[in-house]
Amino acid sequence: MTVRGAPVIGVTAAMGIALAAKRSRHDDSKLLLLDLEKAGEMMRATRPTARNLFWAVDRMLRKARDIADEGRDVREAMVAEAKLMADEDVKANHAIGRFGAELIEDGDTILTHCNTGTMATVSHGTAFGVIRSAVGQGKKIKVIATESRPRLQGARITAYEALSDKIPTTLIVDSAVGITMSKGMVNKVIVGADRITRTSVINKVGTFMIAVAAKHHGIPFYSAAPTSTLDLAGKTTSTSIEERDPREVTEIRGKRIAPRGVNVFNPAFDSTPLELVTAVITDQGIFSPEQIQNMTPA
Amino acid sequence: MTVRGAPVIGVTAAMGIALAAKRSRHDDSKLLLLDLEKAGEMMRATRPTARNLFWAVDRMLRKARDIADEGRDVREAMVAEAKLMADEDVKANHAIGRFGAELIEDGDTILTHCNTGTMATVSHGTAFGVIRSAVGQGKKIKVIATESRPRLQGARITAYEALSDKIPTTLIVDSAVGITMSKGMVNKVIVGADRITRTSVINKVGTFMIAVAAKHHGIPFYSAAPTSTLDLAGKTTSTSIEERDPREVTEIRGKRIAPRGVNVFNPAFDSTPLELVTAVITDQGIFSPEQIQNMTPA
Repeated sequence: MTVRGAPVIGVTAAMGIALAAKRSRHDDSKLLLLDLEKAGEMMRATRPTARNLFWAVDRMLRKARDIADEGRDVREAMVAEAKLMADEDVKANHAIGRFGAELIEDGDTILTHCNTGTMATVSHGTAFGVIRSAVGQGKKIKVIATESRPRLQGARITAYEALSDKIPTTLIVDSAVGITMSKGMVNKVIVGADRITRTSVINKVGTFMIAVAAKHHGIPFYSAAPTSTLDLAGKTTSTSIEERDPREVTEIRGKRIAPRGVNVFNPAFDSTPLELVTAVITDQGIFSPEQIQNMTPA
Repeated sequence: MTVRGAPVIGVTAAMGIALAAKRSRHDDSKLLLLDLEKAGEMMRATRPTARNLFWAVDRMLRKARDIADEGRDVREAMVAEAKLMADEDVKANHAIGRFGAELIEDGDTILTHCNTGTMATVSHGTAFGVIRSAVGQGKKIKVIATESRPRLQGARITAYEALSDKIPTTLIVDSAVGITMSKGMVNKVIVGADRITRTSVINKVGTFMIAVAAKHHGIPFYSAAPTSTLDLAGKTTSTSIEERDPREVTEIRGKRIAPRGVNVFNPAFDSTPLELVTAVITDQGIFSPEQIQNMTPA
C-alpha cells in the first residue's frame, strides 16, 4: 500500500521484476526465468484487484522468455523494458487527458473520487489527468473531491495536487456526494479504475454509489484508465475484491474511533456495472459500455 | 452539537424553555412570556433542520400562553410540560419500536446510518429502537452500521450501543454501503429523521445516497421518527440544511488531514425524496409515502 494507484502499481511491478533480474544469482537463463516467475507470483499476491499489476508482470515475463529464446541478455532487457513501460505510462496518461478533455466543457464542475493524479501514475494522472488536460486547454474547471475513506486519499492527495495546480477544489465527505448532485453542483463525474472487465469497472470503494447517484441525477459518469487496465477475459464475479486491515476503519492516525470488539467489513474496492458508466476514457480513445463489451482482445 | 439526535434536541429545548422560565426576573406574565419567546428564538437558530426543536419550542410557548391566560403559574407549568414531553418521547420511541418490529424478520441484517439510539432520544431510540424491539421479540438481527462521517456517530455511538446490547454489528465506511448491498449482505435499511415533509425525509448527510442505492438493489428503506418530526406545512426547498464547520472535514481529533486552503462543503443533512422511502415508521403507526403526502395536520 506504500505504492498506490493502479498504473503506478503496474510500472512498479515491472521495476520489481527488473530488480529481481539484477539480483538473481543465476546466469543460466532458465534458472533466471524461474527467479523472475517467483518474483512475479509474489507481486501478483500483493494487490489482487490491480489489473495493471498482472498486465505488467505478464508483459515482463513474456519479454524475458523471448529474450532468453534469442540468447540475449535478460537482465539488461528487463531494465530497458521497465523503463519503456514507465515512458509508455506517461504517454498513455497524456493521451487519456487529450481524449477526455474533449468531453469537458468550459465552466464544468467535475466530481472525482480517491486519487488519480501524479501520485497514482508515473505522471499527469488518469481521471485527474483529464481535468489537468482540460485546464491546460484554458477551460475553467472546478473540482469536487471526495475525501475517500478509509485512507483519505482525496483529502490528503487529490486536494493537495489540485491546490498545487491552482484548480479551485471543494472537499466533501464521501456521503455528501448525493446532496452536491441534487443541489446541481456537479456537471460530470470522472473516476479512475483498477480493473475494467466486459461487465464492470472495479475501482476504489464508493465508486459504485457515486455511479448510482449520478445515474439518478442524469449526470455523466466516466472512468479514465490506460488500456492496460482492461481485463477482457475477466469476469466481475471472479475478481477478488481485496479486503483490508479493519484498523483502517477503527483507527484514524493511530487513535481508536470505534469500540473494541466491533466487526469491520473493509473492502478496498467495489464493482460498478458498465450500465451505469457513460463511457470509458482510455489512451486509445473513448469507448461506450457496448464497445467494451464487444472488444476483441489485442 | 453537544446535544444531538432530533428527539433529544426537542426535549432539551423544552427543558431549556422551562429553565428560562425559572431564571426570568419577571413575575408579570406578559414579560415572562417575552423572555420565553426570546429563549425560543435562540434555540430555533441553533439547529435549523431539527423539526422536533421547532415543534417543542412551539408547544412550550403555546402552553405558556394558555397558562398565562388562565392566570396560573407559568414557571411551574413549564417544568411540568417539559417533563411530560420527556415521558412522551420514551413512550413514542417504544411505540415506534413496536410498530417497526413488525416489519423485521428473524434473521434480517439491517443497515443503519448515524446514531438513533439512547444517545439521540430520551431512551430506546427511533431507527435503533426498532432494531432493539425486534431483538426484544427474540428475532435474530444483525446490524451494519455506517461510520457516518464527518462526526463518526456510527463508529463512536451506534457501534457502542449495539455492542452493549450484544447485537452482532459490522462497521463500514459510508462509501461501502453499495458493495454491502450488491453482495446481498443487507435485507433492510432503517434510518431516523430530523424532519419529514410531504415530499422528503431530511436526515444525516449520506441518507439520500443510501436510499438511492437501496432503490437500485430493491432493498426496503424505512425512516423511523416520532410524529413530532412531521412538518406537514414545510416544503423541502424551504428547509434550510445546516452547514457545519469545515474543520469537521479537514481535521480529525484536532489533526489536520487536508491541505490548508482547500474549500469545504460540509452539509450536516440531506434530503431524500419520499419516492425512495418504502414507509415511515412513527409512534402512530406505519405510513406509506402516499399517506404522508395526503396527511391532514393534527
